[in-house]
Amino acid sequence: MANIAVLGCGRIGKMHAANIAAHKQTTLAAVFDVYQPAAEEAGNLYGATVVSDVAEIFASPDIDGILIATATETHADYIEMAVKSGKPVLCEKPIDLDITRVNRCAEFIAGSNPIIQLGFNRRFDPGHRAARDAMRAGEIGDLHQVIISSRDPEMPPRSYLEAAGGLLRDMTIHDFDLARFMLDDEPVEVFAFANALIDPELCGELDEVDTAMILMRTADGKQCHINNSRTAVYGYDQRIELLGTQGMLLSGNRKPHEVKRFNAKESESAAPYLNFFIERYEQAFMAEISAFVNCIEKGTTPEVGFEDGRKALVLAEAAYKSMVEGRMVRVEEIV
Amino acid sequence: MANIAVLGCGRIGKMHAANIAAHKQTTLAAVFDVYQPAAEEAGNLYGATVVSDVAEIFASPDIDGILIATATETHADYIEMAVKSGKPVLCEKPIDLDITRVNRCAEFIAGSNPIIQLGFNRRFDPGHRAARDAMRAGEIGDLHQVIISSRDPEMPPRSYLEAAGGLLRDMTIHDFDLARFMLDDEPVEVFAFANALIDPELCGELDEVDTAMILMRTADGKQCHINNSRTAVYGYDQRIELLGTQGMLLSGNRKPHEVKRFNAKESESAAPYLNFFIERYEQAFMAEISAFVNCIEKGTTPEVGFEDGRKALVLAEAAYKSMVEGRMVRVEEIV
Amino acid sequence: MANIAVLGCGRIGKMHAANIAAHKQTTLAAVFDVYQPAAEEAGNLYGATVVSDVAEIFASPDIDGILIATATETHADYIEMAVKSGKPVLCEKPIDLDITRVNRCAEFIAGSNPIIQLGFNRRFDPGHRAARDAMRAGEIGDLHQVIISSRDPEMPPRSYLEAAGGLLRDMTIHDFDLARFMLDDEPVEVFAFANALIDPELCGELDEVDTAMILMRTADGKQCHINNSRTAVYGYDQRIELLGTQGMLLSGNRKPHEVKRFNAKESESAAPYLNFFIERYEQAFMAEISAFVNCIEKGTTPEVGFEDGRKALVLAEAAYKSMVEGRMVRVEEIV
Amino acid sequence: MANIAVLGCGRIGKMHAANIAAHKQTTLAAVFDVYQPAAEEAGNLYGATVVSDVAEIFASPDIDGILIATATETHADYIEMAVKSGKPVLCEKPIDLDITRVNRCAEFIAGSNPIIQLGFNRRFDPGHRAARDAMRAGEIGDLHQVIISSRDPEMPPRSYLEAAGGLLRDMTIHDFDLARFMLDDEPVEVFAFANALIDPELCGELDEVDTAMILMRTADGKQCHINNSRTAVYGYDQRIELLGTQGMLLSGNRKPHEVKRFNAKESESAAPYLNFFIERYEQAFMAEISAFVNCIEKGTTPEVGFEDGRKALVLAEAAYKSMVEGRMVRVEEIV
Repeated sequence: MANIAVLGCGRIGKMHAANIAAHKQTTLAAVFDVYQPAAEEAGNLYGATVVSDVAEIFASPDIDGILIATATETHADYIEMAVKSGKPVLCEKPIDLDITRVNRCAEFIAGSNPIIQLGFNRRFDPGHRAARDAMRAGEIGDLHQVIISSRDPEMPPRSYLEAAGGLLRDMTIHDFDLARFMLDDEPVEVFAFANALIDPELCGELDEVDTAMILMRTADGKQCHINNSRTAVYGYDQRIELLGTQGMLLSGNRKPHEVKRFNAKESESAAPYLNFFIERYEQAFMAEISAFVNCIEKGTTPEVGFEDGRKALVLAEAAYKSMVEGRMVRVEEIV
Repeated sequence: MANIAVLGCGRIGKMHAANIAAHKQTTLAAVFDVYQPAAEEAGNLYGATVVSDVAEIFASPDIDGILIATATETHADYIEMAVKSGKPVLCEKPIDLDITRVNRCAEFIAGSNPIIQLGFNRRFDPGHRAARDAMRAGEIGDLHQVIISSRDPEMPPRSYLEAAGGLLRDMTIHDFDLARFMLDDEPVEVFAFANALIDPELCGELDEVDTAMILMRTADGKQCHINNSRTAVYGYDQRIELLGTQGMLLSGNRKPHEVKRFNAKESESAAPYLNFFIERYEQAFMAEISAFVNCIEKGTTPEVGFEDGRKALVLAEAAYKSMVEGRMVRVEEIV
Repeated sequence: MANIAVLGCGRIGKMHAANIAAHKQTTLAAVFDVYQPAAEEAGNLYGATVVSDVAEIFASPDIDGILIATATETHADYIEMAVKSGKPVLCEKPIDLDITRVNRCAEFIAGSNPIIQLGFNRRFDPGHRAARDAMRAGEIGDLHQVIISSRDPEMPPRSYLEAAGGLLRDMTIHDFDLARFMLDDEPVEVFAFANALIDPELCGELDEVDTAMILMRTADGKQCHINNSRTAVYGYDQRIELLGTQGMLLSGNRKPHEVKRFNAKESESAAPYLNFFIERYEQAFMAEISAFVNCIEKGTTPEVGFEDGRKALVLAEAAYKSMVEGRMVRVEEIV
Repeated sequence: MANIAVLGCGRIGKMHAANIAAHKQTTLAAVFDVYQPAAEEAGNLYGATVVSDVAEIFASPDIDGILIATATETHADYIEMAVKSGKPVLCEKPIDLDITRVNRCAEFIAGSNPIIQLGFNRRFDPGHRAARDAMRAGEIGDLHQVIISSRDPEMPPRSYLEAAGGLLRDMTIHDFDLARFMLDDEPVEVFAFANALIDPELCGELDEVDTAMILMRTADGKQCHINNSRTAVYGYDQRIELLGTQGMLLSGNRKPHEVKRFNAKESESAAPYLNFFIERYEQAFMAEISAFVNCIEKGTTPEVGFEDGRKALVLAEAAYKSMVEGRMVRVEEIV
């Protein structure tokens, strides 16, 4: 059993706390939040020590690993504290909204060999992973095209948007990572369109967008398309399509159950898809914890680490540059 | 090109006339109906000679084959006339509603070797046939269970029911034939339940039923279930399921197109299934004509012949006996 | 939190112990098994007290409810002990293989009003329940036909079969219960076919069958078909179909993920279905615990109780009688 | 009945000749091909007069309409001859590979009001049309994103590629038209990636590409993605996705039948999709003829006309310019 501390007890932190408490290989040892009542609530719910000084957690010999789910601007600091203390961390994405801060953090890390796992949970989804495994096993021959459809059920509240850092850094960041995961290679060219179609007024005030389409290409010509929307009323839409010379693989959406309805107006009608990431990626979040525990126990390098977090952000930066300049941007322009 | 005459220009006869006119290997040479205006309408529509004396058709050296789509009580007579004249026939099911008349017709035929194809169109459906081919190729190992779901979109009019001979002889007859086709063997035991659920009043007046469930078993223990209903508001429902030691095969329904709808209440909702047999079995009806032409041209025995028509009717008789006596009936009790 | 004791730590008992330990509303307080090492293993795994004398559990003021997952022949005894001690029980099916023992147990219970929930887990499956809810809400009009397909992935070991009491009491019992649940009414007539197709040799030695088809009918003519097989190589097959005047509802199977494969030989190919009941009915087993806790806490009558267990067994007896006598059996002949 | 002449008896011309011969409202009156034996073959097959001087067709008072399926470089000439002779034409795409020739043809036409229908058959596909109808009826609220996946089953032969004018003018031209049809608006911005992944050697020799991804945007910000590949081994892949504020519509692929296979390795496996456009768009090609006959008979303007052909080509030109310059191209740069 690994003793895990959770930093940050907001929506995503509480979900992680619950998962760690329920996971067979982990104990929820401690929780922390700058807003103490949030930590207390989570601590009570899942039976964990509430810590008021985060430094205690980094110093404690009883903590085997730390999950960072605090506000984005604190991620890099906590990663650096973890590196100093030698504690393995599983850090929610993104590392930081500012690529220069991320690069400084990378420099800080350089030379040491810390366990830093990035919270790109979708890599652990059984469907996405089975699709990638089949592709890597040669089932579809040479990969040519990847299409990622990724749509949230609805617009987040204004307060969320104000802190999120923009659609491409907040939401598409997962898809940039999945694109790298599925392409099994680095995109070198990026083009992006994004604009406000769902809530132009709110987006206008926040200089934000809510609907996006992106194209990317690797050095050897493999093509990737990502589409995003903040509104999919039929449920959280998370699909990946891989086209190769010998076939295609689709990783699709899940429903709450397998009932189909038939009547005078329709046939085969199913329930809407699972509502959002907590439901859709439930298994992925648990598998992510398992992978983290495995790294802690064996001292191995995470499957998805700091550099993956940085590269996804670089793609977001390239996409923003493309949006502004109306042209294809080479990724090397950013790094 | 084979010159085909169509006897009977009602709904099903007109459909056959249109198919024969459009088929690449056939010419619609002549049409006949006891109600002359029906024959004239069909003749004008599809460019065929209207014949008022049916004997002319059997006598004509220019007619290569005859499709019988007249009232059921005339089928056996026309089959016998065809045998006498040496003309190949494709006869709509059933041969007759009375098994003794069918048996007399069988005796009449015995000794000669006429081309008599029965209009069990479903055997020619690309899906049902592909399922059977896969089963016979060993894809599902040894066959254990066959399940046939067969439901009409709505109750036929009273006039139809009055002449149809009862649900099991009129509608289930197709399923009895499909059961034999799919089991690749003869059922030896039959049990049936049937009652009136959709229109008890009308059924009561006509001593008819509208909803049925049947079980059958072959000598070596293979099991078969048929379910029928006269009301499937979601479209003509025609499904076959084959379970074997190595897998299962399902032959399902067709939709008019492949559009799926997604909204806040549902996902993957498709259009209702194709409405009825003319739409659903369009390809099957054409393939049935091709098979008939092939027999005419090569002098070969039809894939589905008189004896298949008789055996399906025997199963219907066994099922009726089972309904009345509330017990499993051995098919040999009927023959 | 309800303190639950688990009696019996075999495959199904261990699963329940794990579920109770993980369930948010329950604590696994005690475990018992006549084979002490099994209890110890479960106790260690899920952190529960191992009790060597089962009477202690019935006597303990700290136990709020008891889950009975012991050998079938002990179920009725433990139910009676629970009634005496006033402890709520959730008892695995069947109550007993012998209907006379079940009837004696019913007499024992009569007069008191104990909380006895039967382990018909499938009633709690989100899909089956959603289908039934939609049916009861009138979505498909009047119900006419129910079709239940229920197939195990493979033959159980000989040792299991020797104790199971026969296919219809062991496996179909669930389907008899589901039929009553879905018909929302009592079947009054039963007909059954069952024989050995998968392993005739083993079945011959044990006087057992492995493949079955059943028909049932309610007093007002609603029809129900059940098919069973001990071999579905494509995964545990659990489907329910409800046909009504205004439509149809299908509750289908679940896959481990939603990947579809496309290649030169096929399209839309998915992974085999979830392997067996522990995977397929994972949510149902947890919901069953929730329902039990609810009864304990509120003192309410279980949704599925002793009489449901008895009636399912009566249907099994009727089916066996039908098999032997080759006729439709009226359920009242059994009771 | 409308008397139709077919110019060009290659693969697509022969298909049209067959369709016109089979269509209930048309007679195949005459066929022409610069290679006389091709015309003779088609004439014999479908019972049409073989004309050796194309001018006769334009001059004949017995010809009600002309279908142009000759080599692309002759399309504009024949359109102009048709305008002069007042004959309605249904012209295969593209009008010409050279946009300046198309523009000259447009000038030639200006002022007269001829019936010129463009052969964008996909607009007449029952699925695509049902999706668009549902979208226009408001079913998905405001349209935000359109995704068109369009993949040929395999690379065409070198001889075809040499004459085809490039992937975007030959293949994507259909998708550009569908994009306009589905967006119900004009794209004003285009970005394209295209390269050779399937046969880099052949493509290198021909300065051709075989795999493409395109983004487009309308003036009010609606986004569209097209992906193309010359190799989909699982069958001709033709999908359209429409995302709106209230839902999504998918128009999918068709299979030859509805058989699904289940075994130890997979579930729900269907046959590969219909092989290519002749099979997939069979209904669309017939509906296209119906629409043309309707214009001839009523003198109405075709639903898809010359200007649609020109605009699709303009989008192809914009896409090529984008490929070369690595930037988003405004459509107005082309026109």
